[in-house]
Amino acid sequence: MAHIKLPEDEPGIIGLMVAYREAEKPLNELCNAIMCGPSSLTTAEREMIATHVSNGNECRFCTATHAAATRELMGANAPVVDRVLCDFGASGIDEKLKALLIIAGKVRIDGRTVMASDVARARAAGADDKAIHDTVLIAAMFCMFNRYVDGLGTTPATPEQYAAAGVRIATKGYGARFRTS
Amino acid sequence: MAHIKLPEDEPGIIGLMVAYREAEKPLNELCNAIMCGPSSLTTAEREMIATHVSNGNECRFCTATHAAATRELMGANAPVVDRVLCDFGASGIDEKLKALLIIAGKVRIDGRTVMASDVARARAAGADDKAIHDTVLIAAMFCMFNRYVDGLGTTPATPEQYAAAGVRIATKGYGARFRTS
Repeated sequence: MAHIKLPEDEPGIIGLMVAYREAEKPLNELCNAIMCGPSSLTTAEREMIATHVSNGNECRFCTATHAAATRELMGANAPVVDRVLCDFGASGIDEKLKALLIIAGKVRIDGRTVMASDVARARAAGADDKAIHDTVLIAAMFCMFNRYVDGLGTTPATPEQYAAAGVRIATKGYGARFRTS
Repeated sequence: MAHIKLPEDEPGIIGLMVAYREAEKPLNELCNAIMCGPSSLTTAEREMIATHVSNGNECRFCTATHAAATRELMGANAPVVDRVLCDFGASGIDEKLKALLIIAGKVRIDGRTVMASDVARARAAGADDKAIHDTVLIAAMFCMFNRYVDGLGTTPATPEQYAAAGVRIATKGYGARFRTS
């Protein structure tokens, strides 16, 4: 049971966003800007970073939601998502994404652990400033979302709800269900 | 030196916000909604939660900035801020804020560690659902901000810059320097 009164049948962050619209609006705008807006990273790469961080934080709701979104965005390459969840080093992802997941994993624990050598490795594999910025901010954002969802004891979703959320994020971005136009 | 190119003489998150306006706008809107908007918590209580979490994460920039804002908001009671930074349990703050700082400290480490008994203690001391929601979200937000600032290796500010930021936040809210009107 959640620690505060939330709408029934609205799992995870959805219930929070239904009940606390003052937070819903800027949080979804943040996601649309950073996860879906212009970037040198693809939306699939950004969703993979969100998934990897949520998995490290053991936030089931966010991991399942963003894994579903990543699968949608990766099409025929969707099986790589489960390989990343299991062992990203052996998952077959390219060197750039591997270097960015290393940075994201360090930010997840403590931002101060990111070393110049981590950033140099990502740059050598093709990451530019915007890619490094977005990787750090996405990792930081999901440290927020994971704690918001789990800190208030929200309810999990069903496999069908996670899959539907993945399709919604991949095709319409964030906050689509709250927009009237 | 920061891990990406940022404007010189713009410390901490300010340099990030100058360089990455796509993030600045929703991040400041989030802060204005949750830190300054309607709540059953005072702005001083909310800034104290932000300070406590940033201090736990050892993010110097955010700790100094939000300690300065809290001091501004507390007026004659400003010395309590340094007592909270040192040992909040013995700082003389009231039972409600103490219970909320316990929740915030748990969210900082892992949202799943918040127990029903932690929430019950806060409720017994007068916290309502909105206070508990805002406490968890503020703690989660500053886990994001601390990582964004430190994960990109931003530069620290001067004591004078922290004090000025505290006054600016306390009197004008967030993002005032980016608004043209």
